[in-house]
Amino acid sequence: MTVRVPIEQMKQQFTDVLLSYGVEDSVAKICAEVIAQNSCDGVNSHGINRFPRLIKYIESGYIDINGRPECISSFGALEQWDGNLGFGIYNAKTCMNRAIALSREHGVGVVGLRNTHHWLRGGAYGWLAASEGVVGICWTNTQPNMPAWGATDTRLGNNPLIMAIPREDGPIVFDSAMTQFSYGKLDQLRRAGEQLPCPGGYDSDGNITSDPAAIQETSRLLPMGYWKGAGLSLVLDLIGALVSAGNTSYEIGKTGIEDYAVSQVFIAIDPYGAGVRGHDAANQILNDAVSFVKGSARVSEHGEVRYPGERELRTREDNLENGVAVDAEVWDTVVSLGK
Amino acid sequence: MTVRVPIEQMKQQFTDVLLSYGVEDSVAKICAEVIAQNSCDGVNSHGINRFPRLIKYIESGYIDINGRPECISSFGALEQWDGNLGFGIYNAKTCMNRAIALSREHGVGVVGLRNTHHWLRGGAYGWLAASEGVVGICWTNTQPNMPAWGATDTRLGNNPLIMAIPREDGPIVFDSAMTQFSYGKLDQLRRAGEQLPCPGGYDSDGNITSDPAAIQETSRLLPMGYWKGAGLSLVLDLIGALVSAGNTSYEIGKTGIEDYAVSQVFIAIDPYGAGVRGHDAANQILNDAVSFVKGSARVSEHGEVRYPGERELRTREDNLENGVAVDAEVWDTVVSLGK
Repeated sequence: MTVRVPIEQMKQQFTDVLLSYGVEDSVAKICAEVIAQNSCDGVNSHGINRFPRLIKYIESGYIDINGRPECISSFGALEQWDGNLGFGIYNAKTCMNRAIALSREHGVGVVGLRNTHHWLRGGAYGWLAASEGVVGICWTNTQPNMPAWGATDTRLGNNPLIMAIPREDGPIVFDSAMTQFSYGKLDQLRRAGEQLPCPGGYDSDGNITSDPAAIQETSRLLPMGYWKGAGLSLVLDLIGALVSAGNTSYEIGKTGIEDYAVSQVFIAIDPYGAGVRGHDAANQILNDAVSFVKGSARVSEHGEVRYPGERELRTREDNLENGVAVDAEVWDTVVSLGK
Repeated sequence: MTVRVPIEQMKQQFTDVLLSYGVEDSVAKICAEVIAQNSCDGVNSHGINRFPRLIKYIESGYIDINGRPECISSFGALEQWDGNLGFGIYNAKTCMNRAIALSREHGVGVVGLRNTHHWLRGGAYGWLAASEGVVGICWTNTQPNMPAWGATDTRLGNNPLIMAIPREDGPIVFDSAMTQFSYGKLDQLRRAGEQLPCPGGYDSDGNITSDPAAIQETSRLLPMGYWKGAGLSLVLDLIGALVSAGNTSYEIGKTGIEDYAVSQVFIAIDPYGAGVRGHDAANQILNDAVSFVKGSARVSEHGEVRYPGERELRTREDNLENGVAVDAEVWDTVVSLGK
């Protein structure tokens, strides 16, 4: 069953729970706001549904509620920050904001962030950059949870990659993990008794399958684009570790703790600073390109061609008007949290 | 039939042909070197096999042999260049070199390049950055040649993306178009009477298929990772157009000319400039991560897990020792070119 919770109520609930654990007021508010916004954008799997786990991580000490991001080196438009094992959301937001500030000064800003925790939904930091009028690119590595191409055990992260573009009529935000499907999606379809719309992993006989239950048994999720997603995952991991002077997926795996001490990269580019093409002309070009793609001949009469981020924008409008749609059980759990 | 041509002989042949068309000596040499190196790395499809087409583009005036890349704006670590419709290879190499130089000064450098021509093999510029000891990220847009997700006509480019990492034991270089397979690969397998190793597009009944001939009939190639590759293609296109102040795939398509006036982005990041982690420690971390992934449990006993760029490095060594392996007919054609 779904309930609709006003976003302000949701934020307040998250804030209250975090405050009850002794989280500093300003940090609690920022984390609460991002988590509520993720759900408001329709991404409950990386919004409210993860909140109970976040609290567990606080209880187990995996998240240091007093850990704050800290600049450990600065070289022009490139900075390296240490997350000091604090909140992933707070760290990520701080570092994307810092990359944006650098881009206003240097045209581009890059911040590498090490020793941080799960940022929940990477798209949030893409939307942040786009809302500030700059191009945002960011990614994170993760513990090993995806097999390399030709492998049966999981030695690559699923390393979500985000690319965001500012646009007056709504930003265009690509946000995608390197697996074809998330564990959350497998779970959702298995519960619903449905098959995946295309193959998503391997069964225990080593055959490619669209059966979510069979894939959950093996944990052998297909990389998006087979060898392509596997290769992209590795380079994102290694660039992340180099730019942040932080851990690779291999090293994260060695800790044995989920989502612990990961490495992230935040890039902001201000294409308007250089002044060759102004905002109006750029918006026209973006709109023309989007209209062209959306005007494609469609596979099915009732189908639709969407740009990345389009669905989130619509869901956001609906959720702001009617309350954020969340699973009633999850909401009950969240309401019951707090010390 | 395959012949083995020493790389120096191949370079000289390319240079001689280009000089016969009046190309300036230094430009001819740089283009010849990149094309020969692409073939030496085993990528004939974007090396020697494309040389005859390059000459046709010169003859038809699509490439202006006197067009030179020109910086049109500079804002700190971000520059915008105009390729003036000159050689795509020369323009791309110039701009990646410029991004590298900017990264030495600012930690990161971004160059947007507009009005340029096909760069042949994007990986070449990734290898260039890695050989200079910096992280390289670059991409190009293309004319519309791939359907959006849910679409039957081709309104997205296949927009290859390259990410390269410097490493003492050989760089790690991801180089991938957004289609699951290239037209060249479809052609190669169709000629050999083989099927694709996984679905690569649609047949004329709208069914997903692994038959290269059926896909060539419809031109409906599958994006890598289905909707994921389609979304990534669009954002690469739009960021490319914004950062370079250049054309989108839509506008390139309107010209009706293949590979004409495309937009590219070159990013270089110098992770060592900030000094938190030195070269030796970084190399150790890269090697550990690569060893971990290569040590995966394998699907087949004789299989192998490779990192991106590994095969190219081996092919390069073999081709340097034994001559570059090229199709005899292609070599004959190249030898026959020149005015």
